[in-house]
Amino acid sequence: MKGPSVAVFGAAGFTGALAARLLDRHPWFELRTVTARSEVGRQLVELYPHHRVSLELEELDLERQAAVKAAVVAYPHGQAATLVADLRGRGVRVVDLSADFRLRDAAVYEQWYRAHTKPELLAEAVYGLPELYRERIRSADLVANPGCYPTAALLALAPLAREGMLEDIVIDAKSGVSGAGRATTEKTHFVTVDENVSAYGVPGHRHTPEIEQELAALGARLRVTFTPHLLPLDQGELVSCYVTLAPDGQRDLAPLYEKTYAEEPFVELSTAPPGVRDVRDTNICRISVHRDLRPDRAIVFAAIDNLWKGAASQAVQNLNLMFGRPEGEGIS
Amino acid sequence: MKGPSVAVFGAAGFTGALAARLLDRHPWFELRTVTARSEVGRQLVELYPHHRVSLELEELDLERQAAVKAAVVAYPHGQAATLVADLRGRGVRVVDLSADFRLRDAAVYEQWYRAHTKPELLAEAVYGLPELYRERIRSADLVANPGCYPTAALLALAPLAREGMLEDIVIDAKSGVSGAGRATTEKTHFVTVDENVSAYGVPGHRHTPEIEQELAALGARLRVTFTPHLLPLDQGELVSCYVTLAPDGQRDLAPLYEKTYAEEPFVELSTAPPGVRDVRDTNICRISVHRDLRPDRAIVFAAIDNLWKGAASQAVQNLNLMFGRPEGEGIS
Amino acid sequence: MKGPSVAVFGAAGFTGALAARLLDRHPWFELRTVTARSEVGRQLVELYPHHRVSLELEELDLERQAAVKAAVVAYPHGQAATLVADLRGRGVRVVDLSADFRLRDAAVYEQWYRAHTKPELLAEAVYGLPELYRERIRSADLVANPGCYPTAALLALAPLAREGMLEDIVIDAKSGVSGAGRATTEKTHFVTVDENVSAYGVPGHRHTPEIEQELAALGARLRVTFTPHLLPLDQGELVSCYVTLAPDGQRDLAPLYEKTYAEEPFVELSTAPPGVRDVRDTNICRISVHRDLRPDRAIVFAAIDNLWKGAASQAVQNLNLMFGRPEGEGIS
Amino acid sequence: MKGPSVAVFGAAGFTGALAARLLDRHPWFELRTVTARSEVGRQLVELYPHHRVSLELEELDLERQAAVKAAVVAYPHGQAATLVADLRGRGVRVVDLSADFRLRDAAVYEQWYRAHTKPELLAEAVYGLPELYRERIRSADLVANPGCYPTAALLALAPLAREGMLEDIVIDAKSGVSGAGRATTEKTHFVTVDENVSAYGVPGHRHTPEIEQELAALGARLRVTFTPHLLPLDQGELVSCYVTLAPDGQRDLAPLYEKTYAEEPFVELSTAPPGVRDVRDTNICRISVHRDLRPDRAIVFAAIDNLWKGAASQAVQNLNLMFGRPEGEGIS
Repeated sequence: MKGPSVAVFGAAGFTGALAARLLDRHPWFELRTVTARSEVGRQLVELYPHHRVSLELEELDLERQAAVKAAVVAYPHGQAATLVADLRGRGVRVVDLSADFRLRDAAVYEQWYRAHTKPELLAEAVYGLPELYRERIRSADLVANPGCYPTAALLALAPLAREGMLEDIVIDAKSGVSGAGRATTEKTHFVTVDENVSAYGVPGHRHTPEIEQELAALGARLRVTFTPHLLPLDQGELVSCYVTLAPDGQRDLAPLYEKTYAEEPFVELSTAPPGVRDVRDTNICRISVHRDLRPDRAIVFAAIDNLWKGAASQAVQNLNLMFGRPEGEGIS
Repeated sequence: MKGPSVAVFGAAGFTGALAARLLDRHPWFELRTVTARSEVGRQLVELYPHHRVSLELEELDLERQAAVKAAVVAYPHGQAATLVADLRGRGVRVVDLSADFRLRDAAVYEQWYRAHTKPELLAEAVYGLPELYRERIRSADLVANPGCYPTAALLALAPLAREGMLEDIVIDAKSGVSGAGRATTEKTHFVTVDENVSAYGVPGHRHTPEIEQELAALGARLRVTFTPHLLPLDQGELVSCYVTLAPDGQRDLAPLYEKTYAEEPFVELSTAPPGVRDVRDTNICRISVHRDLRPDRAIVFAAIDNLWKGAASQAVQNLNLMFGRPEGEGIS
Repeated sequence: MKGPSVAVFGAAGFTGALAARLLDRHPWFELRTVTARSEVGRQLVELYPHHRVSLELEELDLERQAAVKAAVVAYPHGQAATLVADLRGRGVRVVDLSADFRLRDAAVYEQWYRAHTKPELLAEAVYGLPELYRERIRSADLVANPGCYPTAALLALAPLAREGMLEDIVIDAKSGVSGAGRATTEKTHFVTVDENVSAYGVPGHRHTPEIEQELAALGARLRVTFTPHLLPLDQGELVSCYVTLAPDGQRDLAPLYEKTYAEEPFVELSTAPPGVRDVRDTNICRISVHRDLRPDRAIVFAAIDNLWKGAASQAVQNLNLMFGRPEGEGIS
Repeated sequence: MKGPSVAVFGAAGFTGALAARLLDRHPWFELRTVTARSEVGRQLVELYPHHRVSLELEELDLERQAAVKAAVVAYPHGQAATLVADLRGRGVRVVDLSADFRLRDAAVYEQWYRAHTKPELLAEAVYGLPELYRERIRSADLVANPGCYPTAALLALAPLAREGMLEDIVIDAKSGVSGAGRATTEKTHFVTVDENVSAYGVPGHRHTPEIEQELAALGARLRVTFTPHLLPLDQGELVSCYVTLAPDGQRDLAPLYEKTYAEEPFVELSTAPPGVRDVRDTNICRISVHRDLRPDRAIVFAAIDNLWKGAASQAVQNLNLMFGRPEGEGIS
């Protein structure tokens, strides 16, 4: 028997389409509706043959579409908030993939994005990183799915943050092109990306305040330098975190990570630096931690698939928690 | 009329082969001999059709081959020193692409590589980064061509080092696969690299002491964290340098870089972060400098082609200087 | 409850490792043993982190390892036959990934490979392309898993062959590098393959007689020109078949293909030419058929994942059939 | 001293920009003007940093810009004809990169493209493949630069065509993404192309009549099947030609090719199938010819760089011929 009905709003983009695929094959949820803004009337399988989802992309029509128990919203930042509010108003439980409900402080949101149109919902939103907020997610009605970079960075840094060991942080991130979305721009043209690598969003990429907010919640109030780079690959994201350690902290890092993540089903530790191939098409975050003794520093690498753990499969992980299902159902 | 005769020792590898090509087409030097250890008897053009060098790879035979004015040595670290000494003993002026004569202190070399077999030659060697040592290179008989990562990192950091502005440095480097050389290993297998990115040599890659030595020579005595990553592209190298600035220094970075490099023919400044495509198949280092004001830090990017400015074309640049030719002859 | 025990012999290579992964997660079969020739004692998960199979690669020891109901043999051509014979002698049902039992005529095998060491087993072997031999596979004890190119080419051409419509055929094939195996050679070095494309095995690649044998079995006795090319991608294979049609045949090709494949779970038809991304990590063969009216010719494209439908998942498909399981179990 | 002044019209696209670079560094021609339709006012070096051409893209203004001796026109098909006519009316000698003057029969052009707006100029145009029309190009005022696929296909097939050996031809072509131009579409998005390969323009790509026209001019009147495929690489194009040989012709193919191309500076013969890396960033076409004896067929491969010999450097080769310069000046 199938469980609760679900809709994916904004399923023409990379992350929405993948969420639709994962929910379409999910043993419990029943994917009922997929909507889009630009490809209305087309079959999702035409746009994404490899997802094999036989549903038509519909125009937004909440009267009809909101008769679901849960929704994944994959709208651009700034445009998601209104739809999320409408869905919540109709009692639909929502996982939102945008940044609109990740920052708890509307003023910070406004500084990095624009004025928030639904600040009244911020208090209700739970930050959807299960490894940090599992219990709160279970009872949440609105989950703000983390950004892809914050997902990897926070899983890399949380053990150190909790122990008060972070004194200064540089995060150098590398991402595949799917992270830039389906929009066809000069930046995503094959000839621009191929045989190339360069930084973007320098300085001050928008994921910075999200990382800082959550580190602070773990007890580490500091400013981070975060710089992403675009790489010639499609899926995959690696964050390389360079941490100046607080002077008095412990230094035995491997056991700390092992203890922290021993029970986590989707965090893997490795001794060698992880590669993004190791986690492609999975909900797994793979982490290695190292010490550089010459300048005393910790180096932590974390690899995820930006479309999976960095977006769509983490959304399903959150839905599983919200509806009392096994956390890995449909994404293992 | 052709000028001095040159030989390339170790021309079967990527950097030696490219040096051979550049010298073969050089308007002044006359490439007379190419040697190899593993592909003796084959035409260089068979191994590297795109270089179009019609010479046969010879076995080493200094009696015959040392009758040249200049040599480029492209042997592995540790194996170059003896050959270089033999060539110097016969009066040949040498540019050595290995690490054997880059570190001025034999003890440091031993710590990172192995015991040095020709420490007596260290005093004679000049570090072949023309932007730092142009005058000394002109009269040098033995030039130690810099490592690819140090080339980019030092050009990125020299302006800050000279001004005493470096307090702490993290260097996150990204390189194409040609930097790993022609050896066929699991690491260089297409399926290992494709759609992947990961760090290697963590912590403490061997280029670290070379960077520290030259920063110290510029007045900045400090330990650096340097971590390279392997990327799915063939040629190209980007270093992302995160610099904690000394508290009292000036903060107007762009003019400092413009002044430093105004007259340099092979350093380009850009306002946007450079991509390695911008410098592919050139001797150019392209640099951008940025300020992150939130944590007060400078971010400097430098892109080079690891086989060109990072190795072979810089060797020719050095030869040009050593023989009184226009610095860019044959490599512009 | 778990079903029959299985072993994978030769699990260090790409196809054997993937077979191990698929069987390790298979809901019915129980993967008990994985062997290797070159990486004995290592965990399979070390070599292939993304497969996440927690078994150690063992040395071959049939006394112990042959106590299984079924085996997948992933040995090189010429070396598989003996092991297969030993396994059959102990009553193990085998799917062999090598070419050793694909050609029914030992003389043809000898002409393209070498003298056959176990010709007496040829009569027993069934060609493991389920879309052609499904019923025979169900009762087979020895299944010769098809080559990757023949899998795609035969699925592309079978409808025309059965109708007697083939008069002349050119097959131009394109493959990702994983098809060349895990061996580290100049051919598989990233720098050789990247930004490149070239033909290999010209003329007369060894998959030619396999294609001709099976076309003949369908009634089309003719010689084919088959030329593969190596492409800068890891998984995926496309065959482009150019068919001169017999003069009197019907010309309405699309309905013929639709009728042929209407019930096939792993054959997809598309109107647009398929891309290998459409079938990546699946057991699906995606086909489109076109008419060129100017020179009267049919053009048929078929895309598969060479490691999946071209090797490992097709092996599992065959095992499913042999043991009376749902054909797509563990590979859908 | 600099020679004749040149303008490039349409220099914002890939081929026009490369033509501008080659002419900017040309020892004889003086590049005076570059125009664009979509990026007016921007520096060419902003769009293409690696070309390093310090000119501003101007809006079209023939009053001013036509005061040049020669022009390269890099406009889309159908839009070039009018500009070319205007330039010819002002006495400017033109190399046109579009298809507008390649087909000598306006009716054929109309069938494959649209009604021709300047059919009166067709008689004057010379097909700009120097290896076939060198003498006529020398005195031409309007040269129609060949398409990239026809360039490779005709060089591959000309020796057989002249000998009357062509009976039937299948051309399977593979191209990098730069051949699709700078337009940002779903087709050129990195995520569409990466790890993918598929055919396009099936059946009947527009380069077909151009190939047929020139084969006919060589004495081979036949229809060809031509199918291009898009590959995950930026520059490079390979054509694989499968030729059914006329029954009575000679069969000793290698000497025929050697004789044909012995004196050609930009055609290379190789015994192994060529790769596109061998000719990257060159004006060279690299060819190998093979016999498949089982079905009696010739297989000919030809590799070019689609942006160079397939477009911009061939345009310069033509300009060199038109102005009495050494054929390889500025492109060797």
